Amino acid sequence: MTSIPTAVSPPSRILLGPGPSDVPASVRAALGAPTIGHLDPYFLSVMDEVSAMLRTVLGTKNRLTFPVSGTGSAGMEACLVNVVEPGDRVLVPQNGAFGARLAEIAERAGAEVTRVPGEWGRAMDEDVMARAAAGKKYKVVCAVHGETSTGVLQDLAPMRRLADRLGALLLVDAVTTTGGVAVDMDAAGVDVLYSGTQKCLSCPPGLSPVSFSPRAEDVMASRKSRVQSWYLDVSLIKSYWGTDRVYHHTAPINMTYALHEALRLVLEEGLAGRIRRHAVNAKALGEGLAALGLSLRVPEGERLPPLTTVAVPEGVDDAATRRALLDGYGIEIGGGLGPFKGNTWRFGLMGAGSTRRNVLVCLAALAATLRGRHAGKAGDAIAAAEAAWE
Amino acid sequence: MTSIPTAVSPPSRILLGPGPSDVPASVRAALGAPTIGHLDPYFLSVMDEVSAMLRTVLGTKNRLTFPVSGTGSAGMEACLVNVVEPGDRVLVPQNGAFGARLAEIAERAGAEVTRVPGEWGRAMDEDVMARAAAGKKYKVVCAVHGETSTGVLQDLAPMRRLADRLGALLLVDAVTTTGGVAVDMDAAGVDVLYSGTQKCLSCPPGLSPVSFSPRAEDVMASRKSRVQSWYLDVSLIKSYWGTDRVYHHTAPINMTYALHEALRLVLEEGLAGRIRRHAVNAKALGEGLAALGLSLRVPEGERLPPLTTVAVPEGVDDAATRRALLDGYGIEIGGGLGPFKGNTWRFGLMGAGSTRRNVLVCLAALAATLRGRHAGKAGDAIAAAEAAWE
Repeated sequence: MTSIPTAVSPPSRILLGPGPSDVPASVRAALGAPTIGHLDPYFLSVMDEVSAMLRTVLGTKNRLTFPVSGTGSAGMEACLVNVVEPGDRVLVPQNGAFGARLAEIAERAGAEVTRVPGEWGRAMDEDVMARAAAGKKYKVVCAVHGETSTGVLQDLAPMRRLADRLGALLLVDAVTTTGGVAVDMDAAGVDVLYSGTQKCLSCPPGLSPVSFSPRAEDVMASRKSRVQSWYLDVSLIKSYWGTDRVYHHTAPINMTYALHEALRLVLEEGLAGRIRRHAVNAKALGEGLAALGLSLRVPEGERLPPLTTVAVPEGVDDAATRRALLDGYGIEIGGGLGPFKGNTWRFGLMGAGSTRRNVLVCLAALAATLRGRHAGKAGDAIAAAEAAWE
Repeated sequence: MTSIPTAVSPPSRILLGPGPSDVPASVRAALGAPTIGHLDPYFLSVMDEVSAMLRTVLGTKNRLTFPVSGTGSAGMEACLVNVVEPGDRVLVPQNGAFGARLAEIAERAGAEVTRVPGEWGRAMDEDVMARAAAGKKYKVVCAVHGETSTGVLQDLAPMRRLADRLGALLLVDAVTTTGGVAVDMDAAGVDVLYSGTQKCLSCPPGLSPVSFSPRAEDVMASRKSRVQSWYLDVSLIKSYWGTDRVYHHTAPINMTYALHEALRLVLEEGLAGRIRRHAVNAKALGEGLAALGLSLRVPEGERLPPLTTVAVPEGVDDAATRRALLDGYGIEIGGGLGPFKGNTWRFGLMGAGSTRRNVLVCLAALAATLRGRHAGKAGDAIAAAEAAWE
């Protein structure tokens, strides 16, 4: 190359999209702490604390609870390839982009996948899932707790009942719910779970917390075939995260520091209060968006507090509006995926980003950007948000 | 959990083991910069600059040059699973731990693997490799440019000749050589390469730069089967790192900042000067260790400058000595793996860690820790290092 680029200096942003979310200063400081060895006794103690805090945040006693060294999709793949063997039946909801991804990865692991049709923007129904299963035995029932592509919160109780009827493990995507919505893994009977760091934990992307129940451990222990991925093979990774400390791969030291600090902040705030904060601010944002004249994509009762979706109003340019918010106000919101591409906006209030100030600035900037019939409603939107907080 | 852990505060260390290496302040500062979105125009420009700088450092014009979102082993797996299909023949040297890992991963990808026996601590011989191939056609010949488990530098020229004779792609592990030893990917005729960030680039672990030649691209484009890993499927990832910018998975934003800064530092120093620095300091360390009465594991001419290996002297406790260096002086060195476990020490002088000061403090601390017949030789060791620099 002809010249050396200048040093990284990111522009000022407020991240109100589907993730990453804004990262608190103390998490960024932890991220930038001096790197030490992956077998250093101090680092091993950090790992133990990360696992312990993850258990608390996920609501589980599972021994096998640790972050996979990759982003949320690596965690998704780790969960599937470790419990699925070629020919196993896997039941997967298709009401969003992450259900589609689960099906794709399960197929690549050799599973016989049943894709259960679903409506984008709606939760899955137990009976629809059961009919698709057609009375056969299944190895895994998948559920997407928070569908980041649609803004839907999936009730896990009916999925657990269904898994019981099918003799299956319940595998759950908790990427967007962990730290912002009650997950309660053990109480909900979840066997296999993966999450992400860059949503309601407000840690940069790069790690994917996972957890396996004793029942899932039994399934993995009785595999007939090797796990197709060496990097994601839990039977090997657990020797490093467990008491043996056998080298598998070099852990992402600094990202582990950052996750440690992010989890500490969750516990300092208190999980219950943090979940309430996400719910209250999402409610205020939803009321405000409605008062602006926008139509919410998800019916009340199925909404995912960390992520609110609305239809792009007729006659409004999706990409140009998002670009104007970014360039004019440094505010990032998300566009749609799949059938929602070009017609849906995704507003994230996740982790440190779920604040009253962000609700107000988001509503004000959106009103100013949309102008026309929406601009005059800025006052209504602010008032609606204020009313929701009262 | 009963109490909230205290914030991360790593102890002071000098990292002189097999990696991670010490991370410069500006790289840590970049790592801690504010997180922004993975589709933010600014972040896309950072990605482009990272790819361009990687091409310069690796010595390649390959379009497909980018960091995989995982550590070096994820890069290894990405390289293998994208070019190998079930039944393909893969030739793999077995003169160290990373050759063993390559064979294991290639097998899990369905390859018919030929493991070529090799001696730990020695480079692979072209004729030995050729005999093992037994005149058959191969899809891939693997070479480990820098064997981090043994401290051996593999000459790539004979491996390229062999690959030509076998009609194979040449796939190279450059984890420990990138940024510290000349890689010259295109000149060496390497088709597929993976690296790591935490060795001679002095960036924390968490990303694995990879590069694919046009010939490797052709092989991937003509696959008959899907890549078994969705997360590591280059046909999907390239749509994000290329001009399409199609969302695949959320990129590890902050780690990408850090890699950007680490690559900038390489270019600011100048690649040729940096490689010379690694060579000169390794020579001084090797002379000093020999003067201390330690026996180097690898014959001259096959030594890997970033990593020097010695036999643990008879009667000396391996683990206790390493622990004494860590506790007494904050110095990390590495123990051995596989057949080298318990009988070998690994000294890394990588990236920012390859300094005259580190050579001297390492020799002095080792002499003080070993005591007995070695302690009296501290002066000789320092003198030998000084002589090497003259």
